[in-house]
Amino acid sequence: MKKGIWAIALLLLIPTIASGVEEVASATINSNKDAIALLQTNLNFVWTLIAACLVFFMQAGFAMVESGFTRAKSAVNIMMKNLMDFSMGSIAFWAIGFGLMFGASPSGWIGTDGFFLSGWTGPEGDQWVLAFWMFQCVFAATAATIVSGAVAERTKFTGYLIYSIVLCAVIYPIFGSWAWGSLLNGGGWLENLGFIDFAGSTVVHSIGGWAALAGAIVLGPRLGKYGPKGEVRAIPGHNIPMAAIGVFILWLGWFGFNPGSTTTGDSSIAMIFVTTNLSAATGSICAMFVSWIMFKKPDIGMSLNGALAGLVGITAGCANVSPTSAVIIGAISGILVVLSVVTIDKMHIDDPVGAISVHGVCGAWGTLAAGLFNMGGTSSKIMITQLIGIGAAFVWAFGTAFILFKLIDMTIGLRISKEEELLGVDIVEHGAHAYNDFQTLN
Amino acid sequence: MKKGIWAIALLLLIPTIASGVEEVASATINSNKDAIALLQTNLNFVWTLIAACLVFFMQAGFAMVESGFTRAKSAVNIMMKNLMDFSMGSIAFWAIGFGLMFGASPSGWIGTDGFFLSGWTGPEGDQWVLAFWMFQCVFAATAATIVSGAVAERTKFTGYLIYSIVLCAVIYPIFGSWAWGSLLNGGGWLENLGFIDFAGSTVVHSIGGWAALAGAIVLGPRLGKYGPKGEVRAIPGHNIPMAAIGVFILWLGWFGFNPGSTTTGDSSIAMIFVTTNLSAATGSICAMFVSWIMFKKPDIGMSLNGALAGLVGITAGCANVSPTSAVIIGAISGILVVLSVVTIDKMHIDDPVGAISVHGVCGAWGTLAAGLFNMGGTSSKIMITQLIGIGAAFVWAFGTAFILFKLIDMTIGLRISKEEELLGVDIVEHGAHAYNDFQTLN
Amino acid sequence: MKKGIWAIALLLLIPTIASGVEEVASATINSNKDAIALLQTNLNFVWTLIAACLVFFMQAGFAMVESGFTRAKSAVNIMMKNLMDFSMGSIAFWAIGFGLMFGASPSGWIGTDGFFLSGWTGPEGDQWVLAFWMFQCVFAATAATIVSGAVAERTKFTGYLIYSIVLCAVIYPIFGSWAWGSLLNGGGWLENLGFIDFAGSTVVHSIGGWAALAGAIVLGPRLGKYGPKGEVRAIPGHNIPMAAIGVFILWLGWFGFNPGSTTTGDSSIAMIFVTTNLSAATGSICAMFVSWIMFKKPDIGMSLNGALAGLVGITAGCANVSPTSAVIIGAISGILVVLSVVTIDKMHIDDPVGAISVHGVCGAWGTLAAGLFNMGGTSSKIMITQLIGIGAAFVWAFGTAFILFKLIDMTIGLRISKEEELLGVDIVEHGAHAYNDFQTLN
Repeated sequence: MKKGIWAIALLLLIPTIASGVEEVASATINSNKDAIALLQTNLNFVWTLIAACLVFFMQAGFAMVESGFTRAKSAVNIMMKNLMDFSMGSIAFWAIGFGLMFGASPSGWIGTDGFFLSGWTGPEGDQWVLAFWMFQCVFAATAATIVSGAVAERTKFTGYLIYSIVLCAVIYPIFGSWAWGSLLNGGGWLENLGFIDFAGSTVVHSIGGWAALAGAIVLGPRLGKYGPKGEVRAIPGHNIPMAAIGVFILWLGWFGFNPGSTTTGDSSIAMIFVTTNLSAATGSICAMFVSWIMFKKPDIGMSLNGALAGLVGITAGCANVSPTSAVIIGAISGILVVLSVVTIDKMHIDDPVGAISVHGVCGAWGTLAAGLFNMGGTSSKIMITQLIGIGAAFVWAFGTAFILFKLIDMTIGLRISKEEELLGVDIVEHGAHAYNDFQTLN
Repeated sequence: MKKGIWAIALLLLIPTIASGVEEVASATINSNKDAIALLQTNLNFVWTLIAACLVFFMQAGFAMVESGFTRAKSAVNIMMKNLMDFSMGSIAFWAIGFGLMFGASPSGWIGTDGFFLSGWTGPEGDQWVLAFWMFQCVFAATAATIVSGAVAERTKFTGYLIYSIVLCAVIYPIFGSWAWGSLLNGGGWLENLGFIDFAGSTVVHSIGGWAALAGAIVLGPRLGKYGPKGEVRAIPGHNIPMAAIGVFILWLGWFGFNPGSTTTGDSSIAMIFVTTNLSAATGSICAMFVSWIMFKKPDIGMSLNGALAGLVGITAGCANVSPTSAVIIGAISGILVVLSVVTIDKMHIDDPVGAISVHGVCGAWGTLAAGLFNMGGTSSKIMITQLIGIGAAFVWAFGTAFILFKLIDMTIGLRISKEEELLGVDIVEHGAHAYNDFQTLN
Repeated sequence: MKKGIWAIALLLLIPTIASGVEEVASATINSNKDAIALLQTNLNFVWTLIAACLVFFMQAGFAMVESGFTRAKSAVNIMMKNLMDFSMGSIAFWAIGFGLMFGASPSGWIGTDGFFLSGWTGPEGDQWVLAFWMFQCVFAATAATIVSGAVAERTKFTGYLIYSIVLCAVIYPIFGSWAWGSLLNGGGWLENLGFIDFAGSTVVHSIGGWAALAGAIVLGPRLGKYGPKGEVRAIPGHNIPMAAIGVFILWLGWFGFNPGSTTTGDSSIAMIFVTTNLSAATGSICAMFVSWIMFKKPDIGMSLNGALAGLVGITAGCANVSPTSAVIIGAISGILVVLSVVTIDKMHIDDPVGAISVHGVCGAWGTLAAGLFNMGGTSSKIMITQLIGIGAAFVWAFGTAFILFKLIDMTIGLRISKEEELLGVDIVEHGAHAYNDFQTLN
């Protein structure tokens, strides 16, 4: 064996060294310095792309949460929507979205180049464009998928596909260019104001949440959700363990979402891990206790959404608030989400999974909190900027999504018929049942 | 596009280099040397925190295994327990546990500072404290969650919450300080003896397993588990595929648990991956064959527990035994777990998921094996030290957990009533069913 | 706390530096250069082993897809097969397979040493052998598990175990040695021809797919799959959400499978992430639209298989085709898989999950595409070499697997009886039901 495996090992190390660290006839201080810089770059690639994997996995988490919290007769449709969210979203973000978000933006309002990854000049060019695209692509798909749950069980599949493409191609990227666009090209107008949203409480979650609000309003509630006298009726989810595992997966994915937003593999990721984790923990604990007080029993749906609320809440400030502040931010997120879910239900806006409360409301709260608990201190200027960002996100996302859903409704139709809804969106839209061997109840 | 994306790329690399590797006016041999050391540190952060992600994911795996192996009417409760294990455990370990475990321990018996992450002095200080906390936090939650399965289907939720907090805050960390506490402060008394437990066969798994034993004894068996003549009755799990996927997730998580315990990103992790994988493999194979011989058919529950047994068994010695030894350690773990499950059942201790056998018994075996198969050779001194550690873990964890469960039982009550147990802990404690759209049988 | 946690931090960094980067009395330019090379090696270990984790997780994905697409009465058996695929596969690849694949191969047709990891000379030796083994081991198990779905619901468990061991120990490794064997020892004959298959469209997926074809032919179709007049009857899967989550997990795992095949942590992984993702996206989109046209509704089974088809299709060329080419390769994969599934069904070859089409057919297409879309340009020589590789894989894998399945059939028997098949393979082979608390329909 001495030759066999040894040889492989050697062989595998050679391209390694050659590609990673330039091999020179004789090293110098400066060649070593360059090699060190290249190595840190390599580490950044590895870290950013592994973080992208974790964020990608959130697609599975969302699919499980949304499906688990709704009925068995809609499970196939939710899986299809999540698969297509990501598939069509990837293509839309490749063709259009990435350019609008990160292309040169002289005005600060919209990116103008980089479509179809044209910024990548081939294997000899800068590979970072591709790594950065990958990381941003999974973010865009996250924004799209947030809406899926809020419009569940009553939406036409074609209408949903159109919404999903437009959100990934246009709505999300344009707002993104305001907050995260290219600085060397003037920068987005929001980031130039000093807007703090490290990993996207507003940019990703509120944008998704307010689009979900628009969708739920335009669609109207599911049949039977509100009684003839306006009373709120619970439509329990069909698979609570699936929803719970989905939340664990989302929590895991957030360890890519927040710390990965450094796009740098160094010690700064540690605090972000800790703030993210602590906020999720107090979010779920506080939501549980609030539900316990309000409904007399510790409610699993609220507790799970509390964890997500804590995660959304810390997303903006994960890199600029202390662990102790994260404990407080998460706690308030957990309380807020329960109150918001109950309030939205009382307003007869039917959001089957609580997406508006988790992502919209707690996204806004988190963005405020990122200013309020800023480790470098806060100020009225900081808070006003945060409020401007929060307001801009609401106006933009709710406005454009409302118009979009209305346009879809008036043209190809957004909602399935009453008869179809009773049968279930799965059999009507996909000709399939999710659980063929089981005796199901509706 | 040339300017747009190029500019981002450049911009993103600048903070990278600046934060990762100090940029100096002109490099020297020593500045390069320091930059290299910093880079290795950065790699250690990335590796340790990714490993923490994998260990965190074990929470989902445990939830699936515990829920899949028990009845549909208890699935909500198990999800809630696992969510709260981790959420409350995180807060308890932040406030108290980490300090007791890793704070200065002049006596070698208990840590005395570092509560509420007070060892972290802010963004200018040492970020390693946070990374290390994160990694240790997911370990502490693992110990807590082991008990969840053994006390399933009959425990009051409030009683469980109290247990879970105390375990993460006090029971686990104090033992942990004996075996893994800070060396520069005198070190834990067990580690000073030379106790070998690299990733926690004893520190995490046996502690959890013996606490599970205490819980199962204090609670007593589920209704109908043992017949009027003492005969053992099987109460089959409600979702075997979910349990199986949970085991795959746990196996995956163990690739963070064991190799991540290096907290160092270097070549030493390779052997730990291999020993971990081989032991899991022979664990499941041997458990399958033993069950095949004993029950005439290859049993899936035993095979799945065999994989976990192999993983627990190699945890102590993963870094100091050879791959070939790992094959043997796993094989014995797989045999042991089947015999132990059958024996514990005959003793009328009702452990619905086999947690005592997997984590307690195989944890003890693994700790012994780490001494026996030590690549540097073994000795009676090594073996006696291993036995002292195993014994100390049993006395401490079983003792404190037994007292704790008894105290809970005598005060707020540990077990739900018979009527409630027939209805199911889900509807009684959480007002919810796990599978609302399915026709279930009990 | 100043002393406590600080001390740990310091202590943990010391072995880090010591092990990662050699600490010398005084650094020199050359010692720095060596330290840099060692650091890149450390990063390669971390990246390769994390990628191995992702590939390992594909086992869970396959188990979910295969189980979700088949009936509830076969779910235990599929979980057992996947657990044993990996467990027995690991041991077989450790004992025999790795040596046959990567041992010294003077003839270019078979490796001849390295059995039982004998190439690893202990902790003082080259640890890369272990990391490389781990990465290759999860690949071998992937090849084995592909067959599981195609032979589902009707295969004797013992027969399947024998097949699985032989594939991991002999069939897969010998072909692997032709395409990926050790270059310094003469190299495999296929790689010496210039065969392009970066991550295994042919080496892993086609080998698995053609073995699946052999298994499905030798076994014959499930009872009732084809009517008395030869009409094709659908046997719908029992848990479509589980299958969908399985596909998300597989997609995630492919981010280890393809980029991890660099075994190098540097910027080259970025393009592979992007090509992999884009091909999966267009695969699922095109399969959906083709199914929509053919069956009047967007079909979830086809869409999910389309994503897998896109992933298999890009596996060979992920590192040598552009993102735009990946979009095309995936699109064709998605179309191809639907046509292939329908055709194979018409030929009365019963492949319950579409494994032959996804892995065999799209694996062959992907290998062709890797030559066709090669960024460095294509040629008739390249295309002929690709065709030789594709043909060799078919002849070898179909041939050996056909003989193997026939031999098993003639000796211990490959298929359960009709009565057993009606009862379900779970209760017959494992004495267990997957869903004990649910009312199931067959």
